[in-house]
Amino acid sequence: MTQDVHHTKSIDVCLTPELLHQYSLDNKIAVIVDILRATSCMVTGLAHGVKEIVPVSTLEECLALQSQGYLAAAERDGSRAEGFDMGNSPFEYMKERVVGKKVAVTTTNGTLTLNKSLDAKEILIGAFLNIAALTEYLKLQEEDIIIVCAGWKGKFNLEDTLFAGALCHALKNDFEFACDAPLAAEAMYLTAKNDMASYMKNSAHAKRLGKLNVIDDIEFCIQESIYDVIPVLYGESLVPLRQ
Amino acid sequence: MTQDVHHTKSIDVCLTPELLHQYSLDNKIAVIVDILRATSCMVTGLAHGVKEIVPVSTLEECLALQSQGYLAAAERDGSRAEGFDMGNSPFEYMKERVVGKKVAVTTTNGTLTLNKSLDAKEILIGAFLNIAALTEYLKLQEEDIIIVCAGWKGKFNLEDTLFAGALCHALKNDFEFACDAPLAAEAMYLTAKNDMASYMKNSAHAKRLGKLNVIDDIEFCIQESIYDVIPVLYGESLVPLRQ
Repeated sequence: MTQDVHHTKSIDVCLTPELLHQYSLDNKIAVIVDILRATSCMVTGLAHGVKEIVPVSTLEECLALQSQGYLAAAERDGSRAEGFDMGNSPFEYMKERVVGKKVAVTTTNGTLTLNKSLDAKEILIGAFLNIAALTEYLKLQEEDIIIVCAGWKGKFNLEDTLFAGALCHALKNDFEFACDAPLAAEAMYLTAKNDMASYMKNSAHAKRLGKLNVIDDIEFCIQESIYDVIPVLYGESLVPLRQ
Repeated sequence: MTQDVHHTKSIDVCLTPELLHQYSLDNKIAVIVDILRATSCMVTGLAHGVKEIVPVSTLEECLALQSQGYLAAAERDGSRAEGFDMGNSPFEYMKERVVGKKVAVTTTNGTLTLNKSLDAKEILIGAFLNIAALTEYLKLQEEDIIIVCAGWKGKFNLEDTLFAGALCHALKNDFEFACDAPLAAEAMYLTAKNDMASYMKNSAHAKRLGKLNVIDDIEFCIQESIYDVIPVLYGESLVPLRQ
């Protein structure tokens, strides 16, 4: 009789990129989360026919790619940066002009978080918009998972943690929680899930965005599983994962 | 008619000392929290007649004070360090031999957190054991408050966040939540409060401590408001706050 020597797969949550140095990403799948609004936009764009999305750190790099024919998307402090084709609203990623195009994007928190996660074996983009597809894919993988929340300028935020909690909850029968952060995120999600919209309105980030008239964006971004696409980092580009 | 120019007092939560650099402590009251078990022990000790408690960073400093007549208390990775008078169980802080004594203490997370918070205007020690007294005192203050969770080796932990949530909840009519962390901590506390004991048993830290046979300590530390003492840092010592 052979012993069961299966590795117990684990799932962990890093609440802000400022804590990422405490985690090993070796041989892990990293799920990057910036619900309002970077990763929601990435999922929306690829679902609507964007060919690939290249995340860059600076406005200058983004403009350099614009001059090579990319659509340039840039957000700073919640608004579209001057001189760019697109800002950070998911509705801009649904327009006909994006179909078949390459998009270069830089955002306050999302791009930075992705760049800090490059040691992972595979980097996926998560959002409520694709959570069912993401869950189904992850269940079949053998690697440990780390969900990396973008937060807001290095601090914890509510919406990314709620997503992390939702994903941990969905995967808890297949993955062991690695520490208290998945447990806490799941508890928050279970508290909030039946009234996500009003719960989100209390968040600091929603209040910031509310001032920028993007309530429609928030309502869009908290919809669960309206898209099946899972963006994966391939070289320097996010493209749809082929399964 | 005069304008209302009162400063809106705010309360914030720093989820681990690794995030403390993102916060200003200027002119704030810092409440240090390490529920399992450093700050619970400090409250218990002062309530039971310890004269003062001196937190130090290293085992060596702690032993140096022992040679000057202090009781020396040291915990590393959850257990009493070799050669010390006391470990980190609150029950050790109730014994008759502590009455009127000075105690030098070093712990894995609690002391470090306190030392990182020295820029605050006032440093108080919080625990479930003294939460009502702490709440009543804080309500009367004009300063902003920051609750600094010790966490576990730099990571988020459940029990300190639950305490932070309880204190935020108790103070929400008097202080505005400064960001999402107080909101999240409060939500977790409200989810857990009716069954704190079983909730805590799921925490990573409780599991670690469980292995060390300190379930009694955990049950003791989650009792609310059994003591009225509020330890305050005065010079290099924690002493009872005089109101």
